[in-house]
Amino acid sequence: MLSEEQLIADYFKPLDNIHGITPASLAIGDDAALLDIPVGKQLVISTDNLVAGVHFPENITAFDLGKRSLAINLSDLAAMGAQAAWFTLNLTMPDSNTQWLADFSKGLAALAKEFKCQLIGGNTSRGPLNIAISVYGLVPHGQAIRRDNAQIGDAIYVTGKLGNAAAGLQCLQQGIDTYPGLIQQFVNPVPRINCGLALSKVASSMLDISDGLDTDLTRLINASNVGAQLYLDKLPLDDALIDYCGLEQALQAALTGGDDYELCFTVPVHNIEILASKAAQIDVGYTCIGKITSGDTIDYMHNNIKIDMHLNKSFQHFN
Amino acid sequence: MLSEEQLIADYFKPLDNIHGITPASLAIGDDAALLDIPVGKQLVISTDNLVAGVHFPENITAFDLGKRSLAINLSDLAAMGAQAAWFTLNLTMPDSNTQWLADFSKGLAALAKEFKCQLIGGNTSRGPLNIAISVYGLVPHGQAIRRDNAQIGDAIYVTGKLGNAAAGLQCLQQGIDTYPGLIQQFVNPVPRINCGLALSKVASSMLDISDGLDTDLTRLINASNVGAQLYLDKLPLDDALIDYCGLEQALQAALTGGDDYELCFTVPVHNIEILASKAAQIDVGYTCIGKITSGDTIDYMHNNIKIDMHLNKSFQHFN
Repeated sequence: MLSEEQLIADYFKPLDNIHGITPASLAIGDDAALLDIPVGKQLVISTDNLVAGVHFPENITAFDLGKRSLAINLSDLAAMGAQAAWFTLNLTMPDSNTQWLADFSKGLAALAKEFKCQLIGGNTSRGPLNIAISVYGLVPHGQAIRRDNAQIGDAIYVTGKLGNAAAGLQCLQQGIDTYPGLIQQFVNPVPRINCGLALSKVASSMLDISDGLDTDLTRLINASNVGAQLYLDKLPLDDALIDYCGLEQALQAALTGGDDYELCFTVPVHNIEILASKAAQIDVGYTCIGKITSGDTIDYMHNNIKIDMHLNKSFQHFN
Repeated sequence: MLSEEQLIADYFKPLDNIHGITPASLAIGDDAALLDIPVGKQLVISTDNLVAGVHFPENITAFDLGKRSLAINLSDLAAMGAQAAWFTLNLTMPDSNTQWLADFSKGLAALAKEFKCQLIGGNTSRGPLNIAISVYGLVPHGQAIRRDNAQIGDAIYVTGKLGNAAAGLQCLQQGIDTYPGLIQQFVNPVPRINCGLALSKVASSMLDISDGLDTDLTRLINASNVGAQLYLDKLPLDDALIDYCGLEQALQAALTGGDDYELCFTVPVHNIEILASKAAQIDVGYTCIGKITSGDTIDYMHNNIKIDMHLNKSFQHFN
């Protein structure tokens, strides 16, 4: 078995050469990394981990897994309106399969390059496959977009389309190969960093949709002490998703499926024109799906009429 | 099973109330935490994880495991001469055993209080027990003590005693209960944060001894492009250790055992008096064990004579 030091030198040390305008003062190689935080910026920190068989099926490739592991973490920086800067990796794996390591680190590197994010430290251990990543971003002081500031009357938006990832995971698990686009949405979520940056000083609150719109919008309204009307007829659904499972199930996937990693955000009415001016930056598109109310729950609306929506768990988040 | 949100609210959210003079602007509860780094300070980041059956035996208590998980990470901040400030936790566990969680979080909290370290985020997952922690410290700009700056002629020191933890682990694994002090050294290492702070502007290089003195001193001399003479007759060995396994094996434990989490540091000759003035702060004691040379390996010395030292692996690091 490769020593931890050799393994890091071969597969991970090269990733500390990938960075943007804020390389670490000291990255991989000492007891700890050293960072200088630019004046006027706050540091944004998030961390998440992926467990084999819990967060991803065993048949995902190592390259895709590397990309996905970093992507779902960067999604949390996007949801704060932050720029990505650095990350660390705790990699636990059953053995030192050099082909797997080469592919995994290439996947990580591909996403790190795209988002100019430097690997500054970490460790490797022997054990059941488990990938923990922490990401570090920067935001101008006081401009992070939190989830606890939605105001009554704000419009509610989401980026991109909803429900595809959950359906893609189902395809992957059941060996259905007729919807490669849906599978890609599960396997390779794209963190909405650029969208998040565009929403600085525009959105009043924001989070990313990792556990399904119903669960995540509930988190947002609970944190903000408000309610919401959700326009079911406005939810952005892909034709491929409707083709795969029908409209009713597509709605279920959007509401409860999870793994979309799109942004859900609220915009005060007086900022809606500014939002329109940012449309080019929000290149995956955005859709108004509701509004913030004085209540404390989500009211499901269809053509402006409140309806009873029965959420089922057929697309429940993998974990 | 408890939801992740309930579990965090019950067992981990209270730990974000423990902090020193630099609480996070935003800790647990949003997509990410927000930190303001004080002017004139650099941020110091380290991360490590513990896997059940690899880094600790299954019979360690949840309380001790909580302490140990944070301690071994804080040891890396100590080794940079940094003050601890914040930490994050990725906890993967097979089920939500509430007694285990209560004990584990109490252990974490005990160490967090002692070192004024605030829990600012993390996640929990289902899977084989795996505890990844990232720690964040602060150091005055340019004053971090790196491992790559040892100079020829510098004296080499270690804090505390060496070899006890490896022997303690052996006792734990073999059910030997006559040396509780050795077991404690394995189970509850104390991060040498205060020692590290005392060595600011005194030590020329430093690291913590996690994998045994031989391995870690080799890392230090390789990073600094120097060699070392190591005085075997000066290694600080506990009487209990010698009583447990004899002098020859005690030396082996000190050199190859690991898990000591003491500091190994070098001091320029002109700073040795200043070091003496810091003795009260280095309350676990320190011992001169060698000197830096112009070579590129460790020469083992006994009573000033170079000897052949055959390292065996009977006390090799658990992983």
